[in-house]
Amino acid sequence: MYRIGIDLGGTNIAVGICDTDYKILAKASTPTLAKRNAELIVKDMASLAESLMTKLEITKDEIEYVGIAAPGTINSRTGVIEYSNNIKIKDFPIVEVFKSYFGNTPVYLANDANAAALGEAIAGVGKGKDSLIMITLGTGVGGGVVINGKIFEGGVNPFGAELGHTVIVAGGRQCTCGRRGCFEAYASASALAKITEEKIYELKLKGIPSLLIDEEKNEGHVTARTAFNAMKRGDKYASQIIDDYISALADGITNMINIFQPEVLAIGGGVCGEGDALMRPLRKLVSRDQYTRDAQHKTHLAIAALGNDAGIVGAAALGNC
Amino acid sequence: MYRIGIDLGGTNIAVGICDTDYKILAKASTPTLAKRNAELIVKDMASLAESLMTKLEITKDEIEYVGIAAPGTINSRTGVIEYSNNIKIKDFPIVEVFKSYFGNTPVYLANDANAAALGEAIAGVGKGKDSLIMITLGTGVGGGVVINGKIFEGGVNPFGAELGHTVIVAGGRQCTCGRRGCFEAYASASALAKITEEKIYELKLKGIPSLLIDEEKNEGHVTARTAFNAMKRGDKYASQIIDDYISALADGITNMINIFQPEVLAIGGGVCGEGDALMRPLRKLVSRDQYTRDAQHKTHLAIAALGNDAGIVGAAALGNC
Repeated sequence: MYRIGIDLGGTNIAVGICDTDYKILAKASTPTLAKRNAELIVKDMASLAESLMTKLEITKDEIEYVGIAAPGTINSRTGVIEYSNNIKIKDFPIVEVFKSYFGNTPVYLANDANAAALGEAIAGVGKGKDSLIMITLGTGVGGGVVINGKIFEGGVNPFGAELGHTVIVAGGRQCTCGRRGCFEAYASASALAKITEEKIYELKLKGIPSLLIDEEKNEGHVTARTAFNAMKRGDKYASQIIDDYISALADGITNMINIFQPEVLAIGGGVCGEGDALMRPLRKLVSRDQYTRDAQHKTHLAIAALGNDAGIVGAAALGNC
Repeated sequence: MYRIGIDLGGTNIAVGICDTDYKILAKASTPTLAKRNAELIVKDMASLAESLMTKLEITKDEIEYVGIAAPGTINSRTGVIEYSNNIKIKDFPIVEVFKSYFGNTPVYLANDANAAALGEAIAGVGKGKDSLIMITLGTGVGGGVVINGKIFEGGVNPFGAELGHTVIVAGGRQCTCGRRGCFEAYASASALAKITEEKIYELKLKGIPSLLIDEEKNEGHVTARTAFNAMKRGDKYASQIIDDYISALADGITNMINIFQPEVLAIGGGVCGEGDALMRPLRKLVSRDQYTRDAQHKTHLAIAALGNDAGIVGAAALGNC
């Protein structure tokens, strides 16, 4: 039997067919074109899945189930996307609509950050471990918690594990969620770019030279890489930005360890490309600060292993967790 | 059948015998005398339980199990108190030692904050609800999470749900755990007393009159009540202290709601005696800030119902969760 995993993102729809060991046998993607009617997006999801089935010569009878990972406020219990900011939909019964293409095949739904965490837990850096938290540093800070192979979704509403929307700096930077000082407002890739941008603006205003300004010129614009690059070239302002960034990241991660005590905490997103420049100081701070410093089992901090495939693999595992 | 719940605290040992509906049929307590040998403490726990059994004319055969709630780093899986600051012990196999008095009766162990949360979930303000977080505002901020009748203890180490040791003010006030800016360093009753004390010191130094100074004189010393009392009498410095206190409490509570989405969040500890002066502004802030403001189910913020009995009742429920 085979399992289909669909990762519905704001930019692309990615579909993969996995075997029962969560190996992706075939995958394909197409632009989401997020502004169009959601019914058309689902039609493309189904078409893409069917084209992969044709390619692998698989019939619908051989599909155990389909899993869908979607962004936003996802109700896995009802199969409804209650709200998504990326794809402009509200209360959309995506499971029901998708089923019109796949007849009796069971269809499951999860939040994309939760699905990515499940993917890493089952087939990535958390394989064989009892628990994993995944933190994805992107436009926001996505969070997913998997304990004993199950996604932790929360209690009365299945919208929990919003790890990015926990305040780590009371009264601090404005977050998109309306609060001030959220983890996301300091530790996302976008936050790092924004903080870098603010510093460059200040330095220019004061006429202070810095390699940050040089890096901005080289790249054409400011990204999460700008400060890392200038730091590696010895710029002190860049070093301060990165020190502060890693300190905030460590604060949020340590909070999650103190709450969940996961065996693995996986970090995903483009910022992880910085490797040791990120992970070495981060490990030091988290190790210093976690509540159970003397515990026999310490949470292993690792860079996520599946990259962009985590969503597909996690979605393909939804019917089996 | 009956269940014995033992709440081992830094000051008192409290023991209760419950029926299968978690009604306390008899209870008694004795000073812990925390500095003595731990074996003697366990002996007193057993003696107290036996005297209650005699009183109720119950034999050991009628005891389904014994549950022990203890402070510190508790390993419920091994039955060992790995570390306790209140009772000066390290790696003490309390379950094994207690069993020497109770033969074949099963004995369970949990962290005291977790047991209190279980008590409230099963027989208190969370009765009939699917999930509850309990936050106890005392010397520290105790946290316990119960989902579907089960204590959430965490992943690889069963020491999770250390909600008090999550940073809400990066680089902020020193916490006893070694970090800066923990929820506990702002929201515990001790923190409130300390912050009040600091303000009174400052006001005296500057020669500024305030009812805070008057309240300190009336009470003889500063407590968590001092600022509440002065606020009620119209003091503006006291009002600011309480505003800041409730704001920090709301930050920490909202973080927990965004992570766990509990049906009920119960607040315990002496500070709750303030009633509406605490709960009204707190509810307003949490309602404004939580991520799922539009969700159908909103977390109900309530004052814990069982008071000091929560630990006994929770301990008496440990064998049935």
